[in-house]
Amino acid sequence: MSEEIMSSVSELVTNEAFGIWYLIGAALVFFMQAGFAMVETGFTRAKNAGNIIMKNLMDFCIGTVMFIAVGYGLLCGEDMGGFAGKIGYSLFGDYGNFSFSSFVFNLVFCATAATIVSGAMAERTKFISYCVYSAVISAVIYPIEAHWIWGGGWLAQAGFHDFAGSCAIHMVGGIAALIGAKILGPRIGKFDTDANGKVTKVKAIPGHSLTMGALGCFILWFGWYGFNGAAATSGAQLGSIFLTTTVAPAVATVVCMIFTWIKYGKPDVSMCLNASLAGLVGVTAGCDVVDCAGAAVIGAVSGLLVPFGIWLLDYVLHVDDPVGAVAVHMMNGIWGTLAVGLLANPAVPGFAVADGNGVQLAGLFYGGGAKLLGLQGLAVLTVGLWTAVLITITYFVIKKVFGLRVTAHEEVVGLDIEEHGLASSYSGFVMAVDTDSYAAAGESVPVEKAVELTYEPTVHESFGSSKFSQVSIICRQSRFEALEKALADIGVEGLTTTQVLGSGKLSRISYYRGSPVEANLVPKIKVDVVVSKVPVKDVIETARNALYTGHVGDGKIFVYNVRDVVRVRTGEIGYDALQDSP
Amino acid sequence: MSEEIMSSVSELVTNEAFGIWYLIGAALVFFMQAGFAMVETGFTRAKNAGNIIMKNLMDFCIGTVMFIAVGYGLLCGEDMGGFAGKIGYSLFGDYGNFSFSSFVFNLVFCATAATIVSGAMAERTKFISYCVYSAVISAVIYPIEAHWIWGGGWLAQAGFHDFAGSCAIHMVGGIAALIGAKILGPRIGKFDTDANGKVTKVKAIPGHSLTMGALGCFILWFGWYGFNGAAATSGAQLGSIFLTTTVAPAVATVVCMIFTWIKYGKPDVSMCLNASLAGLVGVTAGCDVVDCAGAAVIGAVSGLLVPFGIWLLDYVLHVDDPVGAVAVHMMNGIWGTLAVGLLANPAVPGFAVADGNGVQLAGLFYGGGAKLLGLQGLAVLTVGLWTAVLITITYFVIKKVFGLRVTAHEEVVGLDIEEHGLASSYSGFVMAVDTDSYAAAGESVPVEKAVELTYEPTVHESFGSSKFSQVSIICRQSRFEALEKALADIGVEGLTTTQVLGSGKLSRISYYRGSPVEANLVPKIKVDVVVSKVPVKDVIETARNALYTGHVGDGKIFVYNVRDVVRVRTGEIGYDALQDSP
Amino acid sequence: MSEEIMSSVSELVTNEAFGIWYLIGAALVFFMQAGFAMVETGFTRAKNAGNIIMKNLMDFCIGTVMFIAVGYGLLCGEDMGGFAGKIGYSLFGDYGNFSFSSFVFNLVFCATAATIVSGAMAERTKFISYCVYSAVISAVIYPIEAHWIWGGGWLAQAGFHDFAGSCAIHMVGGIAALIGAKILGPRIGKFDTDANGKVTKVKAIPGHSLTMGALGCFILWFGWYGFNGAAATSGAQLGSIFLTTTVAPAVATVVCMIFTWIKYGKPDVSMCLNASLAGLVGVTAGCDVVDCAGAAVIGAVSGLLVPFGIWLLDYVLHVDDPVGAVAVHMMNGIWGTLAVGLLANPAVPGFAVADGNGVQLAGLFYGGGAKLLGLQGLAVLTVGLWTAVLITITYFVIKKVFGLRVTAHEEVVGLDIEEHGLASSYSGFVMAVDTDSYAAAGESVPVEKAVELTYEPTVHESFGSSKFSQVSIICRQSRFEALEKALADIGVEGLTTTQVLGSGKLSRISYYRGSPVEANLVPKIKVDVVVSKVPVKDVIETARNALYTGHVGDGKIFVYNVRDVVRVRTGEIGYDALQDSP
Repeated sequence: MSEEIMSSVSELVTNEAFGIWYLIGAALVFFMQAGFAMVETGFTRAKNAGNIIMKNLMDFCIGTVMFIAVGYGLLCGEDMGGFAGKIGYSLFGDYGNFSFSSFVFNLVFCATAATIVSGAMAERTKFISYCVYSAVISAVIYPIEAHWIWGGGWLAQAGFHDFAGSCAIHMVGGIAALIGAKILGPRIGKFDTDANGKVTKVKAIPGHSLTMGALGCFILWFGWYGFNGAAATSGAQLGSIFLTTTVAPAVATVVCMIFTWIKYGKPDVSMCLNASLAGLVGVTAGCDVVDCAGAAVIGAVSGLLVPFGIWLLDYVLHVDDPVGAVAVHMMNGIWGTLAVGLLANPAVPGFAVADGNGVQLAGLFYGGGAKLLGLQGLAVLTVGLWTAVLITITYFVIKKVFGLRVTAHEEVVGLDIEEHGLASSYSGFVMAVDTDSYAAAGESVPVEKAVELTYEPTVHESFGSSKFSQVSIICRQSRFEALEKALADIGVEGLTTTQVLGSGKLSRISYYRGSPVEANLVPKIKVDVVVSKVPVKDVIETARNALYTGHVGDGKIFVYNVRDVVRVRTGEIGYDALQDSP
Repeated sequence: MSEEIMSSVSELVTNEAFGIWYLIGAALVFFMQAGFAMVETGFTRAKNAGNIIMKNLMDFCIGTVMFIAVGYGLLCGEDMGGFAGKIGYSLFGDYGNFSFSSFVFNLVFCATAATIVSGAMAERTKFISYCVYSAVISAVIYPIEAHWIWGGGWLAQAGFHDFAGSCAIHMVGGIAALIGAKILGPRIGKFDTDANGKVTKVKAIPGHSLTMGALGCFILWFGWYGFNGAAATSGAQLGSIFLTTTVAPAVATVVCMIFTWIKYGKPDVSMCLNASLAGLVGVTAGCDVVDCAGAAVIGAVSGLLVPFGIWLLDYVLHVDDPVGAVAVHMMNGIWGTLAVGLLANPAVPGFAVADGNGVQLAGLFYGGGAKLLGLQGLAVLTVGLWTAVLITITYFVIKKVFGLRVTAHEEVVGLDIEEHGLASSYSGFVMAVDTDSYAAAGESVPVEKAVELTYEPTVHESFGSSKFSQVSIICRQSRFEALEKALADIGVEGLTTTQVLGSGKLSRISYYRGSPVEANLVPKIKVDVVVSKVPVKDVIETARNALYTGHVGDGKIFVYNVRDVVRVRTGEIGYDALQDSP
Repeated sequence: MSEEIMSSVSELVTNEAFGIWYLIGAALVFFMQAGFAMVETGFTRAKNAGNIIMKNLMDFCIGTVMFIAVGYGLLCGEDMGGFAGKIGYSLFGDYGNFSFSSFVFNLVFCATAATIVSGAMAERTKFISYCVYSAVISAVIYPIEAHWIWGGGWLAQAGFHDFAGSCAIHMVGGIAALIGAKILGPRIGKFDTDANGKVTKVKAIPGHSLTMGALGCFILWFGWYGFNGAAATSGAQLGSIFLTTTVAPAVATVVCMIFTWIKYGKPDVSMCLNASLAGLVGVTAGCDVVDCAGAAVIGAVSGLLVPFGIWLLDYVLHVDDPVGAVAVHMMNGIWGTLAVGLLANPAVPGFAVADGNGVQLAGLFYGGGAKLLGLQGLAVLTVGLWTAVLITITYFVIKKVFGLRVTAHEEVVGLDIEEHGLASSYSGFVMAVDTDSYAAAGESVPVEKAVELTYEPTVHESFGSSKFSQVSIICRQSRFEALEKALADIGVEGLTTTQVLGSGKLSRISYYRGSPVEANLVPKIKVDVVVSKVPVKDVIETARNALYTGHVGDGKIFVYNVRDVVRVRTGEIGYDALQDSP
């Protein structure tokens, strides 16, 4: 058969087969939304689960609308001076020529860039502000820089290489995440500070479902085969991409496991999950041009960047990024982009990196000199600057118009109920009280001073007094830390706390699917303490001052006689058993 | 190269490449079973989680068996008068000609139709009855109407267009869901009724894992690219289908978010998740023939149909559909089918809608007149009628033979333990008591009257009486509401409730994987109340009457002296602190 | 067009289209890692969730590194005498000829074999030992036997047929699982034994999230379409594989449902989920050569093998396999391999089973005689033996060097905190105390004898004695069972237990993402008992002896007067109400 025929046939086959794969890849990239949602939800607290789910859902949906309206034109429209495409609406008319596949593909990529931010800004960002943010990044910020890189813009013309978006998507999302988290400030309770605002302690706020988080990571990794591979155009190239997309995260995870094992004494689960994603982000730019060894090198660095990045944000920058989005996406986005300049190997199947004149470029370590590395660095700088400036303006405008952060009260109580009227995303499960948040929120200062209490116990105690008294205090969960502290100040320790339900009239109603959620049992805390030396009167007064807010539901205090007390360990009886012991 | 060769080659390529995609699509549709399972489980209560999982698993497995035995022939067999195919078993012999791909594809679609119902009938349907139902729908009801539409039957011949099953699958499943939920009646506790049975209040019964539900929605959306796209036969058509399958749910979700924000004051998470699915259902019939604008219109309506449908069922029809299956599948199935008659645009790639004579049909808004709309409406009516009649008969026969609904006791305790011997799907987690269900189940009426109690406290109280007495009642969780009500009737309020475990001999054994589950700690509720004015004797008698069932485990009542009481807010002491205050 | 051209074209098309599908299949097989992780986590306890996730993540990542270093060469390298391939590193250099696709595909298959073991050895295996195990199986054990079967080794040459790995992967993983679980011994609390070590009772240890487990099963089933189908080379063959891959698990699940319904009185959820997987494992070897009836037969047997296998391990072999890996993978791996010898049907599309001389072989039931069955049996024996010997050596070396099992204390407290410093994988949820484990761990024997207690209550009780005394004991959760038993021995029953939090100084710190997790509220148990006849002194002494460990945190005992007691059911008052009654 003639060469010519075979070549035509081959082109036809490639168009059809890889055309389908291109869309399957897009579907896989869509599925990554589920991965992001699970990772971000799992790594944060249960009281905000519905809110984070909703943010992940809405950034895709709002992003779709904005991408149709503006973004797609800016990205893929006719190039205007290398800066942006021309906004157009051939999607709505020119069906014969419009590439639906390309549209869908670019849309799901755009949504990925947008969704990275929600994790770093989780648990404290206003929902409406997040909606506005995702509209802006999907409409303008991402499409324009992506036009530079993939839409025929100036970076594309210069020969910059970012196959699947280490720079265009992950670094951009990561920078938006960093700046957003910085402007928002940390979650209440994340950092202890001294009087001057200096951070004295970094505290962990564990996520509520590591299993969900892990599932999210597996889904992301699975989807990444589409993310990195969708644009491949030959079998050998696709195979090579699958290889690098497997090797980099695997090595990153192993390296991170070893590092955390050495550094923290135990292999850290949540950082290793992050490391898998970091390796994927790192290899994204060069997945089609690095070889197996290159992918391993990228992965090894990515695996270290995760614990380094988390440490840097926690202990140096004091920026609170609940899910590690900055370490995973920004740092590895930058690293992956630069790594192309170091590790691009022209021997890899389907290699196609060339400067504006069509001269092939290769990585520094593969004899290509510094030219490609320079180009990659230039892109990191310019795209980074573009993103930083635009997103900062965006956040400040949002802050002015809507406010960026929820109130301390909303944050402490949880965004599910406050932002969505959702009493709980886990109805039926008994949840622990997040007393840390309440305490850190500074809600321990009573709203007003309690009316002075003249306690005259003599009459009521006439039936028989006891050397030991149990004071049982039923109070709001949110006042527990204040109570504990106040009692400690007067020498009362050894509290026993029980979660109880008080029958009461609920002051607020939440809705679930349009119907009211009834709840006349209000969660309370019962604090029991047995005292002997400290007068009951003092305990009552102290408790009352700590608990008083002036609102219904402040609680009640009961006093009982206790006949005797024994400390198990020492065998001390009575008074001695109540004293603090070494 | 000659046109002829290229055409042959092109056909070959399309057959091969789209043949593979067809099966990948089938796998994606299979994966939707995971999505349905997660949505339905997440949106219902934890005590029924294993049961719902099991129903979702079994409807696929039983459906497969029935589809092989009967359904496939009725759907795809040789057409008999436009009504049904001829049952045959070429699957078991004629390997050379049998289309395995087509079989698998039709099978997973059939399973989708069956599984829709489980959500609407969740938390109260007998397991065996559900098994029978799914056998019938998979064997007869679905295959015959699907033959009309896709198997060469009368609707197919007339030119009716339902590309991926808004009508054939979602409307049919949704109608079966509505009728099933109606016949079953609402879950205990869903509606308050007055003496005449009139609904006086609609109550929410929140799902136990919104995160799971959200994951299910993402999985469904992902799988829908296969559901809608599997039957595509060209790259441009597939791209267009992916586009409409993305735009409709995105717009639906945005519209629903805005609507619920306005209507309920806050953007509702669970309805927005439903809205994504609604948009997908809506665009399913016309995914290949509507353009981007059409998809947006379909989505916008779908996004409103969700809150409307949920409201309609809750507040007008008083039909209890725990997961919104009727609003999502039936309403949007109808809407999507009709929307083809309005919005079918002949300019869309791969457009192929024609009447029996091969004359192209178009939507009303695209110059096609009312003919296509009429056809679509006719299909809605006839397929709807077919489904309604057959499924009603099915349910009534099941009801006669097996009973359709579990007993009130089984429903309140949970289907996991009652139907599957599964003590908990979440072993190790502490679950809240579902006191609402117990109360609503009317279990507050004692089985027999308690033997009269002659309380002679004088002797025992001789050691010292107190003005304040604490009565601590340890009782069954299921009697709590009855107790609370009875105490309120004699003026005793301000109960504090604690979940405790009583050591006891468990009366029942459950099995997990064939081994007995031990549990000698029985969940109980401890109710503490401090009284002063109301005589302790009255409290004890009232409590005893409310708690008495005559069976072991009715509980105990303890009385303690209380030395004093203080109300935190007012500073009231003693008697005053116990009185109700504004 | 000439036949010749069409044939060339057809080959080209198949290469391209099925080349892409081959990689999509590999991605689906990767996704099965998520399925395994969810099944194994869901079917085990919450306190080990992070550890199991981590094992599933790391076996893939470590396996990847080892497979690159050694395994791939042994599997796919130039055949050396039919035993193994030649280790080589063309992956790192010979880009022009290296098949990246094949590498990725073989890698994900290798990881599947490795991951099966983690479930059977869950909840008690040292993390480092698991890492070493997975390195060895990925580097040596799997690659060599897979070379025999798929790499051109002696079994491949002889005509042995195992299309997707019932033998090469599942049986091998299952044997490693069985031997590992046997060497490890059962989890604490799984079996009660008498003085001679004879098992007297098998106890269930329910998993913590059946929903997660079910999701994992759905993901595995979905991924299995890639697992079984990836290597197909024609549309008809792929369709046939999809059919058998659907029918076998569906039938298996239905059969298992019916069987457990009959055997245990109720359809067992977790065994039915296992049965789906069992059907998939069973059909894996012959998915391309059995017909629909054959798949149904395979499934029916698989559905019975699950309850049989679980019963056999629990009640006969007394091997503790928490997730059913042995029943699912080993037993069905063997069955599926042998089933090819019985059921291979030459009429199936793409049938290609032939002996070394190219003579077609068929199953016993399809007129092929016993030759194929003999070959299949030979493979089961030799591969089984190879695996058993090698893995036993591996485990014993690991046991010597690192130890295979965690300490009883680590096991009882949980591997998340002990192995990974992860306080909880479900932060914020209130978890029930796993008192069974504590008791079974034999921690009921005090570390030292409590100092004798001379209880002199007279002085403190002078304020008024009571006929009824409440003794409230606040103690470690881990001592509860010991306390309960000791009190029962002196005739004290009717305990009421409450989960409380004690304020204390936490003795250990855990880290989450490199930051310390604070927790000054220590979970304790409060045990209340009201006594009359039994002297308070005896209760205190008994409790103290049961609780004493000599360490801070042993707890306190409080004594209160109780004014009166009433038993609800009988109306007995005072003393009578406290006595045990029928």
